[in-house]
Amino acid sequence: MTDRDQDRFHDQCGVFAIVNHPEAANLAYLGLHALQHRGQESAGIVTSDGARLHACRRMGLVGDIFTPDRLSRLKGDRAIGHVRYSTAGGTSISNAQPFTVHYRGGSLCVAHNGNLTNALVLREELETQGAIFQSSGDTEVMVHLIARHGMDLVESICQSLYRVQGSYSILFMSERLVVAARDPFGIRPLCLGRLGESWVVASESVAFDLIGASFERDVEPGEVLVFGEDGAVRSLRPFPSRPRRLCLFEYVYFARPDTLLDGRSVYRCRKDMGRILAQEHPADADIVIAIPDSGTPAALGYAETSALAFEMGLIRSHYVGRTFIEPKQSIRNFGVKLKLNPSRAVLDGRRVVVVDDSIVRGTTSRKIVENIRKAGAREVHLRISSPPIRFSCRYGIDTPDDEELIAHAQEVGAIQDFLGVDSLGYLSLEGLKTATGENGFCTACFDGDYPVDFQDRGRRLQLRFEGL
Amino acid sequence: MTDRDQDRFHDQCGVFAIVNHPEAANLAYLGLHALQHRGQESAGIVTSDGARLHACRRMGLVGDIFTPDRLSRLKGDRAIGHVRYSTAGGTSISNAQPFTVHYRGGSLCVAHNGNLTNALVLREELETQGAIFQSSGDTEVMVHLIARHGMDLVESICQSLYRVQGSYSILFMSERLVVAARDPFGIRPLCLGRLGESWVVASESVAFDLIGASFERDVEPGEVLVFGEDGAVRSLRPFPSRPRRLCLFEYVYFARPDTLLDGRSVYRCRKDMGRILAQEHPADADIVIAIPDSGTPAALGYAETSALAFEMGLIRSHYVGRTFIEPKQSIRNFGVKLKLNPSRAVLDGRRVVVVDDSIVRGTTSRKIVENIRKAGAREVHLRISSPPIRFSCRYGIDTPDDEELIAHAQEVGAIQDFLGVDSLGYLSLEGLKTATGENGFCTACFDGDYPVDFQDRGRRLQLRFEGL
Amino acid sequence: MTDRDQDRFHDQCGVFAIVNHPEAANLAYLGLHALQHRGQESAGIVTSDGARLHACRRMGLVGDIFTPDRLSRLKGDRAIGHVRYSTAGGTSISNAQPFTVHYRGGSLCVAHNGNLTNALVLREELETQGAIFQSSGDTEVMVHLIARHGMDLVESICQSLYRVQGSYSILFMSERLVVAARDPFGIRPLCLGRLGESWVVASESVAFDLIGASFERDVEPGEVLVFGEDGAVRSLRPFPSRPRRLCLFEYVYFARPDTLLDGRSVYRCRKDMGRILAQEHPADADIVIAIPDSGTPAALGYAETSALAFEMGLIRSHYVGRTFIEPKQSIRNFGVKLKLNPSRAVLDGRRVVVVDDSIVRGTTSRKIVENIRKAGAREVHLRISSPPIRFSCRYGIDTPDDEELIAHAQEVGAIQDFLGVDSLGYLSLEGLKTATGENGFCTACFDGDYPVDFQDRGRRLQLRFEGL
Amino acid sequence: MTDRDQDRFHDQCGVFAIVNHPEAANLAYLGLHALQHRGQESAGIVTSDGARLHACRRMGLVGDIFTPDRLSRLKGDRAIGHVRYSTAGGTSISNAQPFTVHYRGGSLCVAHNGNLTNALVLREELETQGAIFQSSGDTEVMVHLIARHGMDLVESICQSLYRVQGSYSILFMSERLVVAARDPFGIRPLCLGRLGESWVVASESVAFDLIGASFERDVEPGEVLVFGEDGAVRSLRPFPSRPRRLCLFEYVYFARPDTLLDGRSVYRCRKDMGRILAQEHPADADIVIAIPDSGTPAALGYAETSALAFEMGLIRSHYVGRTFIEPKQSIRNFGVKLKLNPSRAVLDGRRVVVVDDSIVRGTTSRKIVENIRKAGAREVHLRISSPPIRFSCRYGIDTPDDEELIAHAQEVGAIQDFLGVDSLGYLSLEGLKTATGENGFCTACFDGDYPVDFQDRGRRLQLRFEGL
Repeated sequence: MTDRDQDRFHDQCGVFAIVNHPEAANLAYLGLHALQHRGQESAGIVTSDGARLHACRRMGLVGDIFTPDRLSRLKGDRAIGHVRYSTAGGTSISNAQPFTVHYRGGSLCVAHNGNLTNALVLREELETQGAIFQSSGDTEVMVHLIARHGMDLVESICQSLYRVQGSYSILFMSERLVVAARDPFGIRPLCLGRLGESWVVASESVAFDLIGASFERDVEPGEVLVFGEDGAVRSLRPFPSRPRRLCLFEYVYFARPDTLLDGRSVYRCRKDMGRILAQEHPADADIVIAIPDSGTPAALGYAETSALAFEMGLIRSHYVGRTFIEPKQSIRNFGVKLKLNPSRAVLDGRRVVVVDDSIVRGTTSRKIVENIRKAGAREVHLRISSPPIRFSCRYGIDTPDDEELIAHAQEVGAIQDFLGVDSLGYLSLEGLKTATGENGFCTACFDGDYPVDFQDRGRRLQLRFEGL
Repeated sequence: MTDRDQDRFHDQCGVFAIVNHPEAANLAYLGLHALQHRGQESAGIVTSDGARLHACRRMGLVGDIFTPDRLSRLKGDRAIGHVRYSTAGGTSISNAQPFTVHYRGGSLCVAHNGNLTNALVLREELETQGAIFQSSGDTEVMVHLIARHGMDLVESICQSLYRVQGSYSILFMSERLVVAARDPFGIRPLCLGRLGESWVVASESVAFDLIGASFERDVEPGEVLVFGEDGAVRSLRPFPSRPRRLCLFEYVYFARPDTLLDGRSVYRCRKDMGRILAQEHPADADIVIAIPDSGTPAALGYAETSALAFEMGLIRSHYVGRTFIEPKQSIRNFGVKLKLNPSRAVLDGRRVVVVDDSIVRGTTSRKIVENIRKAGAREVHLRISSPPIRFSCRYGIDTPDDEELIAHAQEVGAIQDFLGVDSLGYLSLEGLKTATGENGFCTACFDGDYPVDFQDRGRRLQLRFEGL
Repeated sequence: MTDRDQDRFHDQCGVFAIVNHPEAANLAYLGLHALQHRGQESAGIVTSDGARLHACRRMGLVGDIFTPDRLSRLKGDRAIGHVRYSTAGGTSISNAQPFTVHYRGGSLCVAHNGNLTNALVLREELETQGAIFQSSGDTEVMVHLIARHGMDLVESICQSLYRVQGSYSILFMSERLVVAARDPFGIRPLCLGRLGESWVVASESVAFDLIGASFERDVEPGEVLVFGEDGAVRSLRPFPSRPRRLCLFEYVYFARPDTLLDGRSVYRCRKDMGRILAQEHPADADIVIAIPDSGTPAALGYAETSALAFEMGLIRSHYVGRTFIEPKQSIRNFGVKLKLNPSRAVLDGRRVVVVDDSIVRGTTSRKIVENIRKAGAREVHLRISSPPIRFSCRYGIDTPDDEELIAHAQEVGAIQDFLGVDSLGYLSLEGLKTATGENGFCTACFDGDYPVDFQDRGRRLQLRFEGL
Repeated sequence: MTDRDQDRFHDQCGVFAIVNHPEAANLAYLGLHALQHRGQESAGIVTSDGARLHACRRMGLVGDIFTPDRLSRLKGDRAIGHVRYSTAGGTSISNAQPFTVHYRGGSLCVAHNGNLTNALVLREELETQGAIFQSSGDTEVMVHLIARHGMDLVESICQSLYRVQGSYSILFMSERLVVAARDPFGIRPLCLGRLGESWVVASESVAFDLIGASFERDVEPGEVLVFGEDGAVRSLRPFPSRPRRLCLFEYVYFARPDTLLDGRSVYRCRKDMGRILAQEHPADADIVIAIPDSGTPAALGYAETSALAFEMGLIRSHYVGRTFIEPKQSIRNFGVKLKLNPSRAVLDGRRVVVVDDSIVRGTTSRKIVENIRKAGAREVHLRISSPPIRFSCRYGIDTPDDEELIAHAQEVGAIQDFLGVDSLGYLSLEGLKTATGENGFCTACFDGDYPVDFQDRGRRLQLRFEGL
């Protein structure tokens, strides 16, 4: 992983389900490939043939894991799948999903994107009742809750979801049923599509594009969809109505630009962020460049509005991904340089607006800025297409602790000095909301307004176990 | 796996523990290497540094799994380890051991050799109480029982062992304690050794030889040994006294010839089996050959007593182990031939006594006999250094169902005809007991006298899940 | 490899050398990483410590091949390296470079980018003299020529280069010398850089950027550079002067945009191609999109000049590279879709200018166009930033035979019909030359004006050997 | 590799050919499996379909290299194959065989067991003529000689064999012909077999046993067999008649016990060596043990003649083969212990005769003796079933230099002291000849009587190249 990757927010997962299709495994595999940007550590697919579940979970990329041989063993006409991002320290096959268990009701597998904020409280309670845990994840907590209920699966799921707090776009599958649910605030995205006689569910609509499915609608916050064996789908609303609070950062960075969130084009929203950013923070400069690829749409919008030329000033290597050996006689900003090469021909002697989507710790941004200057840029005006990130996410995004966020305690001026730029401008939260055209967002990482209570506060999972 | 391997009994596991040694992982790894014959599917080591457990479990052989890098991450001064044999259908990393969980008491890992005969009954009971299972193994049942107890670990282990039935030579480790236990009948072997200030426990004493530890004594049937942090060991006897019933087949085939079982040399016992076999079933023949390597000690004993020359009539290839491709224009008895080549120079024109340790289905034996005849043997007199196997094992040995055992319903005469030998002689059960010098054995596979009740009878694990 | 990759020209190699640096292997490895786009099949580095050569050649990517362990064995203060593209049928480690031999002069290794046009003629001649060949490549021919000369290495190299025809940017290394040479027409690029006391040579200047070396100058066509042990470099000119003919396609597609060719920024040239293309072939449209990533600079130029908005209408997946399984119920244009997703939000209802760098067979372009229309584009105006490709390359580029080139026998009108576009415009050769600002180019693939004779015409290597 | 392996002589190769069989590759693969004991570093098979050769060469064991997929690509009805032992420093795929080239005559591949004693002289001569070498092996020299001849292949082979000196059992294959040859002294073994309409050639007859072929006869010293496309075989005798000198060590150690050399059973010869050894060097002892597996046949013979009981006093692990990590707190004689465990139950308090086949450096023998004593042996009487090895082999066996051979300069008494045994007895050369029943042997390693001149004496290959 390069420096730049480490200094980013990361989504932890993507989920996909397909029901009533003779090639369920093959399509789940393509769906996960389209969601690969949401998690590259591990991937898994579980299928059901109505009588038995068939599973394959592995560390690695979708395209490497699912060989023809492995896919052919995943029999059945329905499937759920998961891609997972590696969070610090938790790299282990035992955390890979879909998570699968046997319990008195039969077999159950679960694919979860999100984060429960009372998982540790519930875990303690379950352990007191004698539960054993084999992973460090909160998904296992959910499964324990379900297994303890005596009723039918859908009822058990609803009861269990009632007890958990936090964010979840989650898929369940037993031998006979597939269930999709989204938390009452709709913090993580989840959408419903249609492919002939089949239903598909995915974290992002790009998964539908590849397999030729049509986008139907978003799964509603608080909605539980039950896909039965008869091809019918039921929509349940077991929770009281809550204001929707979709994660704003999905628009800023996580989602693919070609996806739709709540029916809106992410690419268009990002371009609008750049346009508004140009209005809020114009710069007296010669050219606009992006930090590719995530900063590009906003940079295009910024350039359009500011009537400055958009140029490719940083060229991204497509072959990074593994660890490279740094020479002893070390190369300054080595990790960043491996991935992004500043183009002297573009930058030399120019006053440059650099557009990025966000700043987390700021350490990588500083290196990139230094490299841009070394390539001859006369001035560097950094523009960020989101507000300062001041608080950690509790809902499924891998973020550093508050103290490590450069904007947690520092003002823009101090950050500007740290980064060594001639000017620094963040998009305002209002500007961001305008660009995304919605009011119902989770903005906690910007303003600390957390929609869901944090019962686990102060608790820390006492993992006395490594390398399960 | 060759034909011959498939037509054998197989032990399912070997276990090893070491306490109070600065290189616990390195020594556990060597100990498991010495026990590799007890299981080649997967291997695992968990260490404890007093505060945290560190684990590595993988499919494959000990020498391939434990690289210097992986061993170096297994920190701590105590370790338990496990090698596992692949039983039909259950090949999966989720069944690899040591099995590890988090529960209210902290972390717990378990390495188990044996088989519980009421695991399904207990599993149903636990599931009714809401337990979830992630493996198909009975070890997970044991862990659930422990986790449900509220007392200290040793007390919980004893209480749980009280509830399970069947065979177990089992090791537990928490952050702070190592516990070794052997079932009340002592069906599977377990012995205690000493290496300087360290204690070692292993399925067989050969594990002590390699690391230079001394054999202290067998762990007694029904004994629970607790190794504390102070280097002290406590011996508990939580169960009522039972007659000892060590598995006779450990003497016949499983254990390495250079190991000690209950303090007796396995090699010597096997040689004595051959001696008694020669008395019980002499043969008018020219030479004695063994089916190598397991039949060799008994063949040497047979040759000595019968005053016939022992010859190497079957040469074993040391490079078999993987699947070989059979030509379309097939080679008769291909699988057996890959492993055992009959030597015409030895066999041609001779009347041959062939000594093997046991017959399971008889299909492989028949092929070997046919190959020996093709190499010119004039007569083939098969001698088996154990009684006819008539009943399946329920205590941790991978055996076919009763109906597949050639001796289950057939008399010796019919078997002789099936195998195509000129004469066939099995060692009597009395002869076998004389050779092993003990009375307290489990002889169930020979005479159906099962020491432990089979509560799971008629139950079958409804595994509706594949490829966990 | 995706559909799109298969319907491209491909460079066959990149070369790199460094002389007089204590970490020669580490820097060669980084240099090759920067040149990875020039070849992904195999890579190799050979170092010299003055007395011995040390080599590592493997199939795969630079970042996967050169582990710390392997790099540490590549001792010495000078190194040459090579990345190779897989040409049809020739995938084999025996064709990987640097090519290495022992001969009477000692050891010699060679890294070659280019193609000899009299290799088969020379090969026949050498075979008649008793030479044996272990590869199918023309580099082995060069080595035979050198080995047959009796003089010192530099003299032998010059004499041998005199005999070969075609294109070569080539590096030689013996135990004591490093030699770099470029063919008299300078068909393939090669440049010289400086890193402190060390000299570096590379196919493209991007290799200098990563390691912090400075660009000195291009190696001149027909120049032979000799790097001695004393750190000195000698420039020889053993050939009569010829007009320079650098491959124009390096500007169009092969080179990285951030590299300098003959001192000119490739990115700027490409943008200018787009600008001139907009003048030559304007379009009445709403937006300009690129086929990413290679078409992006020209699309930016086209958009600027035409005053149309540049938009990201096709989103490229960064995780393609391996073979994906296509469902039985097949997905139209599957291979292209895996890599490029058309964004309906951008394209729907729009009249779209699509800019690509070139068309080879046209089959992939047709699929992309169809996908763009399916995403709602009202009109598709395809603009190509190079002239029609009508002739195969003989100088080191992997191209199909003439007949497979869509423009070989068809006019623009017919191609437009085949591709299903509303209009089609190619950049004129004059326009291309204007954009690249030079006259001395090889334009053979556009106009059939091959600078070097093709003695091998009609010959075909009779390879009666597979999988060496 | 364990200590014991390192302190052994090693054969460098085994060869196998089959002509006129529809499953040539599959049978070559089984043949090589049967010859695996002759070389474990690399293996290769080349097939011919009459028009093209198809090759697969890899590092590793036969069973790992030849997957169904790879075998299926080896098309044709004839094949030659090779297994190779790793000699010090020469581990590289470029030395793997069959060695394959293109030359004016077409394609040619060669599989060679043996060693040329004028390879360096010829290499220098060839290099002077401009030849290039890509390997360090002498097989490449042979191919150069053949390529330089202008006549037909068989004629060229004969002429080339005329020029080389040393030992060779060698196979050649072009698109149309297979040729087998054995050097005029017949130093390395080679035999001819028949399988239906097919001819087979192999280093040892065990390769015939597995595939069901019958042993026809040995290839005669100096004989060249030509297998044409018509299924016919011609026998040529291009060399003047020489006294046969088969390597005696093939009988002592290299060959599998179940093979026939010159029609004699190796197992029987080894048993006879033990019998004669018992007569020459009786011992006042209690038991006889072997160092398994190679010492076992002689130990059985020794026990029979001396009327002492043969016992299994050293148990060999079947799972050694890879490098094991030694604990820091090191284990005495670790490498030997991993492989051979002395059984205290057998050895304790006994006077033990230990039979081994040979002593090379003596370092490993000393460790084994020490381990036997530690296991309680009261006396150790070492008996060696061959004479003292006093001279290096020049004909294809990997031996240390003369000075490293313990018997090169030391008398038996001194060796006995070094090894720490109570008595030491070597089989006399006469005894060995008696046991093997032949006079025509190469005995150079025992008495320095080298049958072939050593033109390369004093020369050393100046390999200035590593890791080709």
